[in-house]
Amino acid sequence: MITSASSYTITMRIEGQREDGLIHNILGVIGAAGGLLGAIDLIEPGAGHWVRDFTVHCNDPQHEKRITKAVKTIEGIHVIAVSDDTFRMHLGGKLKVEGTFPLKTRPELSMAYTPGVGRVSSYIAEDPSRAWALTIKKNTVAVVSDGTAVLGLGDIGPEGAMPVMEGKAMLFKEFGGVDAFPLCISEKDPDKIVEFCQMIAPTFGGINLEDIAAPRCFYIEEQLKETVDIPVFHDDQHGTAVVVLSAVKNALKLVNKKMKDIKVVTLGVGAAGVACSKILMAAGVENVLGLDRNGILYQGRDVNGNEMKKWFAEHTNPEKIQGDIQEALKGADLFLGLSGPNLIQPEWIKTMAKDPMIFAMSNPVPEVMPEEAAKYAAVIATGRSDYPNQINNVLCFPGIFRGALDSHAKDINEDMKLAAAEAIAGCVDPKKLNPDYIIPSVFDKRVARAVATKVNQAAHESGVSQRRQKPAMIPAI
Amino acid sequence: MITSASSYTITMRIEGQREDGLIHNILGVIGAAGGLLGAIDLIEPGAGHWVRDFTVHCNDPQHEKRITKAVKTIEGIHVIAVSDDTFRMHLGGKLKVEGTFPLKTRPELSMAYTPGVGRVSSYIAEDPSRAWALTIKKNTVAVVSDGTAVLGLGDIGPEGAMPVMEGKAMLFKEFGGVDAFPLCISEKDPDKIVEFCQMIAPTFGGINLEDIAAPRCFYIEEQLKETVDIPVFHDDQHGTAVVVLSAVKNALKLVNKKMKDIKVVTLGVGAAGVACSKILMAAGVENVLGLDRNGILYQGRDVNGNEMKKWFAEHTNPEKIQGDIQEALKGADLFLGLSGPNLIQPEWIKTMAKDPMIFAMSNPVPEVMPEEAAKYAAVIATGRSDYPNQINNVLCFPGIFRGALDSHAKDINEDMKLAAAEAIAGCVDPKKLNPDYIIPSVFDKRVARAVATKVNQAAHESGVSQRRQKPAMIPAI
Repeated sequence: MITSASSYTITMRIEGQREDGLIHNILGVIGAAGGLLGAIDLIEPGAGHWVRDFTVHCNDPQHEKRITKAVKTIEGIHVIAVSDDTFRMHLGGKLKVEGTFPLKTRPELSMAYTPGVGRVSSYIAEDPSRAWALTIKKNTVAVVSDGTAVLGLGDIGPEGAMPVMEGKAMLFKEFGGVDAFPLCISEKDPDKIVEFCQMIAPTFGGINLEDIAAPRCFYIEEQLKETVDIPVFHDDQHGTAVVVLSAVKNALKLVNKKMKDIKVVTLGVGAAGVACSKILMAAGVENVLGLDRNGILYQGRDVNGNEMKKWFAEHTNPEKIQGDIQEALKGADLFLGLSGPNLIQPEWIKTMAKDPMIFAMSNPVPEVMPEEAAKYAAVIATGRSDYPNQINNVLCFPGIFRGALDSHAKDINEDMKLAAAEAIAGCVDPKKLNPDYIIPSVFDKRVARAVATKVNQAAHESGVSQRRQKPAMIPAI
Repeated sequence: MITSASSYTITMRIEGQREDGLIHNILGVIGAAGGLLGAIDLIEPGAGHWVRDFTVHCNDPQHEKRITKAVKTIEGIHVIAVSDDTFRMHLGGKLKVEGTFPLKTRPELSMAYTPGVGRVSSYIAEDPSRAWALTIKKNTVAVVSDGTAVLGLGDIGPEGAMPVMEGKAMLFKEFGGVDAFPLCISEKDPDKIVEFCQMIAPTFGGINLEDIAAPRCFYIEEQLKETVDIPVFHDDQHGTAVVVLSAVKNALKLVNKKMKDIKVVTLGVGAAGVACSKILMAAGVENVLGLDRNGILYQGRDVNGNEMKKWFAEHTNPEKIQGDIQEALKGADLFLGLSGPNLIQPEWIKTMAKDPMIFAMSNPVPEVMPEEAAKYAAVIATGRSDYPNQINNVLCFPGIFRGALDSHAKDINEDMKLAAAEAIAGCVDPKKLNPDYIIPSVFDKRVARAVATKVNQAAHESGVSQRRQKPAMIPAI
């Protein structure tokens, strides 16, 4: 298991004797085991002894076990407890719900609740679209998951999915100023999930579907797009696709190629693979090959009823090319990996077209390690934060929902997604554009604002904004 | 329409000439029309003119119209706009969702979201009860409504219900420290509402059902109590009942009577009427009469399939007394009004037993006005904040859910409700107990804490706490 060090930090609470050199001894042992010391905090200064918290960054669970084992052998100390900082950070959950103003006085209570609130409720009941102005709908998105396709963990259930959705809600707020609330539900029947989302639509200004396994995610999103009047966006598909498109746009500038001329090979034909291929085609790409583990998809190949594979067979590979991934890569300009670890031999890249672009997005281990791909590729992107060019959905979803909410959009349509990709790509200064910088940093605060502005504009221009037709009003007297 | 002045405040934005005495002239006109000036804020100090905001408290919409009309007749000014402070307070909704810590650095991001969060998710997936320790479940309640019985407004739909539920969530936080999130849903089918609540159960530590019309509210609550492992509490029934019981407990001390000896007359046999009668009987009352507009309910009377009336016919009035409300009140000790305005003649109170207790809780206009009832009654309570002894659910729900969450309760059972009532009653110092003070103020911060403590204890003693059996653990290494 590969984890980033910053996500694997432990705190060892140690009791020791007041004795010369003991602390240095401990630090030496931690260092010798490869642990990186974060801090030492004094918890209890006793008469003859002390209690201190040693914060140590480790690589992974095995590494951590080695460090604690080594420390425990030191004489004159007692390891009271070892806690995992990531777990400690999660204690009690990661979100809070608060009033936008305090309720300390009777007038505040009488306006925010009965009897004053009754006037506001009646006013909305006359025209429910007024909820956009006078309720949290204006700024609030539901993050809905059934917990069936969580990160790389698969079907871990709604409770297990909660920490991920809470984290997502934090990102919504931090980067988009959007209030997002996670709803992890104990239901896998797609029709019931559709009903669930229909039921909550009055409360929210948008629904972010998350980590719902394919092919159910397609059906659910499709049904909802037809039946609810707020945007529904399956981030695993479209968020990834938007960010990939933005990165491809910038990469093409570097290699001096055009969308319509490139050959794209997509390995991994799940929900994200379909969405990435679709958006690239919407942006002008004409030549796409999709591959599952049995090779290239073509019209006539048995796809065993798999809707995603069927889509590839019907919409890509017009020449009905057959073969494996090595075959497919020959002459290709762009490799999109949404599959699994180490499926690409670095040498195969040599057979691609001039200046090949490698997007190896399998996580945590890419289809080909960037160090290896670098020998042959012109541009490399991954899903990891410890290499350049991280394809990370956080560049898209906070801004795209910010823009959708700002325009009271009833949908997030193709135009809005293309606008989002354009905005993300535009955050990379052309003068600074280089093979290690085709996509902005996830901490670049300009991104969400740029995306929101472009998306809001696209919503208006494509007619899904409900703001122009029916502006939100408060009663004029 | 009766509204409390504090809930009806307007702000008039006025442009005027820089002229001696003009502002005093405006104040004079507002005062003459009966308006109460709150404040004057300078918005724009121009060269020859000014713009100022005049905040004015009014009694009701008619009063406000008289004031603004009078002001508009003043020469030398221009009323730019008149806004309603209650509406202004609601702009954009009343709740925000935030992270419990900031996400500013890469280590924070890597722990709160991928890749660090994956370890927490896997750990919960192994045993979903760990969600109580590591997700927002620990402190979060859903406030679910279908908008069918909102305040006195009836079926105003989910959008219209939102401001009320948002206000409720604010009260949860302010008084109980509970994170509550409103979910107003576009669904009235009781079975679908049951399904909805079952689906969201993994996310939440409790469900507060709110403003769902009878008799569906009974069915929904009953089904959920049997099928979900978190507390489900219909506040309109049980919150009211708990607060009524606490007030009755204290009132009985004043009139020196015992639960088992009193005769109770309940006018209005809706959800709250049933719940109040049930809890009083659970607390020892033996003699209850329930009445609808056709008179006393008794076994054998046609109740037209109404479940609530059927309950009264079967469980109260063993002597099968028949008659109207005037008849019922004869010799009664306690009148519980959950019906409509002015249904009780003050003189009828004379026919009640010695030291009668009148709980006239119809809102905003009670069954009998306290000034009138005071001629004959020993103790009077209403639902209003502008009379002593306000029966207000806010005394119960924040504390009862706080206690339920603290004990990881799988239910809010009768013992917990009785404990809550005992705790509320106990917040009135026996030395200060008097007919105008049988129930603590809604702003008494001790109440929620006292209720939470007693409820937590009752949960443990009655076996619905899940904390003792399976304490929440974080991984020990």
